Amino acid sequence: MSKVWDKYPQVSKELESVKNIIKENIKTSEKYFQDSVIPLVDNGGKMLRAAFLLLSAKFGKYDKKKMHNLAAIIEILHLATLIHDDIIDNSKLRRGCESIQSKYGKEYAVYAGDILFCQCFSMLSQDDYTMDNMRSISKAVKKICMGEIKQNYFRYTRKVDLKKYIRIVSGKTAALFVLSFSIGAKEAECDENTVKLLGRIGYNIGMAFQVVDDLLDYDGETKKLGKSAQSDLKQGYYTLPIILALQEDKSGELSNILDNSNFNEDEVKSIVDLVKKYNGLEKARKIAERYTQRAFNGIEQLQDCESKDILKQIVKKLINRCY
Amino acid sequence: MSKVWDKYPQVSKELESVKNIIKENIKTSEKYFQDSVIPLVDNGGKMLRAAFLLLSAKFGKYDKKKMHNLAAIIEILHLATLIHDDIIDNSKLRRGCESIQSKYGKEYAVYAGDILFCQCFSMLSQDDYTMDNMRSISKAVKKICMGEIKQNYFRYTRKVDLKKYIRIVSGKTAALFVLSFSIGAKEAECDENTVKLLGRIGYNIGMAFQVVDDLLDYDGETKKLGKSAQSDLKQGYYTLPIILALQEDKSGELSNILDNSNFNEDEVKSIVDLVKKYNGLEKARKIAERYTQRAFNGIEQLQDCESKDILKQIVKKLINRCY
Repeated sequence: MSKVWDKYPQVSKELESVKNIIKENIKTSEKYFQDSVIPLVDNGGKMLRAAFLLLSAKFGKYDKKKMHNLAAIIEILHLATLIHDDIIDNSKLRRGCESIQSKYGKEYAVYAGDILFCQCFSMLSQDDYTMDNMRSISKAVKKICMGEIKQNYFRYTRKVDLKKYIRIVSGKTAALFVLSFSIGAKEAECDENTVKLLGRIGYNIGMAFQVVDDLLDYDGETKKLGKSAQSDLKQGYYTLPIILALQEDKSGELSNILDNSNFNEDEVKSIVDLVKKYNGLEKARKIAERYTQRAFNGIEQLQDCESKDILKQIVKKLINRCY
Repeated sequence: MSKVWDKYPQVSKELESVKNIIKENIKTSEKYFQDSVIPLVDNGGKMLRAAFLLLSAKFGKYDKKKMHNLAAIIEILHLATLIHDDIIDNSKLRRGCESIQSKYGKEYAVYAGDILFCQCFSMLSQDDYTMDNMRSISKAVKKICMGEIKQNYFRYTRKVDLKKYIRIVSGKTAALFVLSFSIGAKEAECDENTVKLLGRIGYNIGMAFQVVDDLLDYDGETKKLGKSAQSDLKQGYYTLPIILALQEDKSGELSNILDNSNFNEDEVKSIVDLVKKYNGLEKARKIAERYTQRAFNGIEQLQDCESKDILKQIVKKLINRCY
């Protein structure tokens, strides 16, 4: 289990059980499908979405088996979107291993993602989850895909401004965090206000998480990230640090380079330097802090319990992470 | 509406309503998503799966609104798989128009397909369909994807024998036909035997349909097909006509060419000629007829009604189609 959870043995133990459910469900499929997907589960990342679902559900009537299943569904959903993202981004690495699209080909990766999507809905239909949650899940996935489509549409153009960036991130990242925070709570019969509050906390954490991710694309290390550094930039995704740096780029030296595409290594280096020079990283970090603060304010309003304390500590870790 | 239904104004009218439901549901999404998908719906093909669902449901308690919705869901599901298939096959044409992957790029097509998958589950959760059907649908889509993965795995290899071919087609094509024949009937509360019988009919029609499709890849015309002729062959998919021809290719002249990949036009022509010379088309046609006969036998066991007559006539048309 990721070391994020080292200090919380209870969460860590429950996530281990979620991971086993994921693996069991993938094992119902054919051998070579299992072989391609299981390594990704084993190197399972931080399992943030599953953890947030479990922690939120604890504000209501916590049914362990049901919640572990639901957390597994959310993680499989996330896995499906990652596999499809890697096709688009041509990513070689995922969670420190060779990505499915790179190892098995893009063709395979399209269907592997599709199978995982179906697996989620198949698992949802096997337990007595509310139709309402089924609706929320399918809507969230639509939002994620729309966010990805928008992001892709704006590749290599400087037309992405702050407003468009926020819309993209609201879809591609925050939607799944909102879902993780709210569907567990809903199944645990939390009252409507608590579900809404948790959803808002999820939104702000999701936004902060993505901004930090975008920052790491500029100053993170490949080894720690488990994926290539500057990969977004090289793919032509102009994220928050660039958008904010451009606001101070009066001479046009940054925008001139960005008007090209398929940057060479020198250009990548220049862009990173200019983004730093024009305070892109610094300003983006402030925005991440603002979202984090909003998340904290939300968490403060939750009833006192162990989950609340864990949420606070984890959010603090996320904003300061380097992986 | 496709001319297949010209003789059946009632079916045609109902399919028109199904088409409107599909369009309305797609219109809930963003403008450019609509613009990319609606043309595919308008040039909507034969809508066979929807029609089979409606015709089967008529053997039970027919609730028009519910069945039209369910038929729309099945067609959207089919659309999603087509969009993803076109990515894999690099197809330029679909239903006589430029394919989404060709017009908007593969990246876009991945997410467009994903959105349509989610749309299905979202629609399913809005009506009071049985969880049992939700399960059947997600299982069927998994089967379809597994079939596609297998097909892709065997590209440009002569390892596909008759048994493997049947397994591939059972997944990639027949699974959705089985679903179309059975879920409408199940929702219409047909008794278990009738649902099973309809499922078997669907399976045999699906198998016959795919074999005829594979035959058309050899002797169909691009204009009539709405997609390129010999496209399967050029992509390295060795379908039934080749598999059967190879059984008579004692001299090895066909297998020698097949051991290459990326055939030039001359090689494509030689393969087509050799497949004909070694009776590949003739024998495949016999197999299609055998599946059709099984479908007829099944249909005969259904209770007498208008749907039964229409099914018989449509199946006869399908086996003799050239598009």
